[in-house]
Amino acid sequence: MGIDPGTAACGFGVVELEAGRLRLVDAGVIRTGAGATDPERLRLLHAALSKLVATHRPERVGIERLFFQRNVQTAMAVGQARGVALLVAAQAGLPVDEPTPNEVKQAVCGNGAADKGQVAAMVARLLDLPLDGVSDDATDGLAVAIGCAYAGAAARRLTAVP
Amino acid sequence: MGIDPGTAACGFGVVELEAGRLRLVDAGVIRTGAGATDPERLRLLHAALSKLVATHRPERVGIERLFFQRNVQTAMAVGQARGVALLVAAQAGLPVDEPTPNEVKQAVCGNGAADKGQVAAMVARLLDLPLDGVSDDATDGLAVAIGCAYAGAAARRLTAVP
Repeated sequence: MGIDPGTAACGFGVVELEAGRLRLVDAGVIRTGAGATDPERLRLLHAALSKLVATHRPERVGIERLFFQRNVQTAMAVGQARGVALLVAAQAGLPVDEPTPNEVKQAVCGNGAADKGQVAAMVARLLDLPLDGVSDDATDGLAVAIGCAYAGAAARRLTAVP
Repeated sequence: MGIDPGTAACGFGVVELEAGRLRLVDAGVIRTGAGATDPERLRLLHAALSKLVATHRPERVGIERLFFQRNVQTAMAVGQARGVALLVAAQAGLPVDEPTPNEVKQAVCGNGAADKGQVAAMVARLLDLPLDGVSDDATDGLAVAIGCAYAGAAARRLTAVP
């Protein structure tokens, strides 16, 4: 499961990797009402993410590490949503990957400097699905999930080395 | 209840305001092990704050709004802890104040530009306690709690106006 954290719109994606093939399980965007207070939005986000984790029981969770923001206020707001996402993973006892955006691009496109369009095209190709109507936030969540799935497979291979 | 959010050290204070007199109920610092991962530290913070809220059943919670950080990475880390603190308050259905540091100083000292020493001295005087051995984080939590108690009293007075 991959999460692109945000308070107003939090993207997520769930994929399955089996025998080297990726399959889409779920993807979408959690939107919390603009009329609600910050604490209430974080409560809704926590409830929605907890429900997704309980439904899909992922093996691991990837939560994008965002540190490119120049605006400290934005960083604080994204940090609050990230804190809730990290908490949900820890409460479920799941291993957490915290890839940077470049690491996600590297995992999905083999190029850490790929642009948004290239990432979206690769996500669609790897999942063998047209993702034209899918929002950017959900696509970002899927990209993180794909990177996370590869990382999980690599970790299993390493563990399997005698 | 007042909270000075942080992942490594999160200060808190609980005070009671009755007939214009402040009384110390509890204060301290939640420290999460430096050896633990970020998600695990946030889980420990959530559990500790939830327990404090369940124990003291405060009427309202003040969570300092920190936006002075120039360092975006620090803002992100503090944001994660703030997100968990805001979540705990929302999960308990409590009203949340988010005062800036200047607003806390204004409430406690009558001067938004008061320095740390003045704030600590005023907190000790208002609670009629020597706070010499108390850590900065706990004192900050108490200062936020005092501002929050005053804000709660003001809100009740306004509601009482016919």
